[in-house]
Amino acid sequence: MMEKKSFAETRIFDSKAMKRFLLHDSPYFRILNFNLSAGQVFPVHSHEVEGRLSIQILEGVGEFLGKDEAAIPAREGDLLICDISEPHGVRAHTDLRILVTIAPPF
Amino acid sequence: MMEKKSFAETRIFDSKAMKRFLLHDSPYFRILNFNLSAGQVFPVHSHEVEGRLSIQILEGVGEFLGKDEAAIPAREGDLLICDISEPHGVRAHTDLRILVTIAPPF
Repeated sequence: MMEKKSFAETRIFDSKAMKRFLLHDSPYFRILNFNLSAGQVFPVHSHEVEGRLSIQILEGVGEFLGKDEAAIPAREGDLLICDISEPHGVRAHTDLRILVTIAPPF
Repeated sequence: MMEKKSFAETRIFDSKAMKRFLLHDSPYFRILNFNLSAGQVFPVHSHEVEGRLSIQILEGVGEFLGKDEAAIPAREGDLLICDISEPHGVRAHTDLRILVTIAPPF
């Protein structure tokens, strides 16, 4: 299979809660697009499983969040990579779009 | 480990050959940025291993290439997902930047 997806189709924001779109799922990786309105937070969380994830900023400005209230500046073109078991989250300063790749999915 | 990378730092083109930048490598996935100058081609290829890859267009316009001379329009925001064993490639109409995620690396 060769599967084409476009982020243009999922550029949808909701001021009440962040939006989540599943773009791909397979035993190898899962790819999700989340859209956060300015001010929204993807709360810090982690899962006790093997694997790694990347969070790519597609659009906007915000912060990558980590343990002990860590906050790393994040803007379009930035990529954060961490273990799935490591606390991670995102805060949106402006409307913010991210692409999350989880390998392997759990 | 929490590792931050920026594509801004690898926005480098070479009119003689496409540029390749390794952004991340682990047992879970490998993430690469390739920059193709207008007219350059990432030739169609495949590897007989298990796994899947995604090719994300970061910037520019071109085509995803496949078997039997398949050519699928590709522009910023598009994502192609295929098995590593499936023929895949990219053609750049304009200067084109792509992000390739391979899970698992081989």
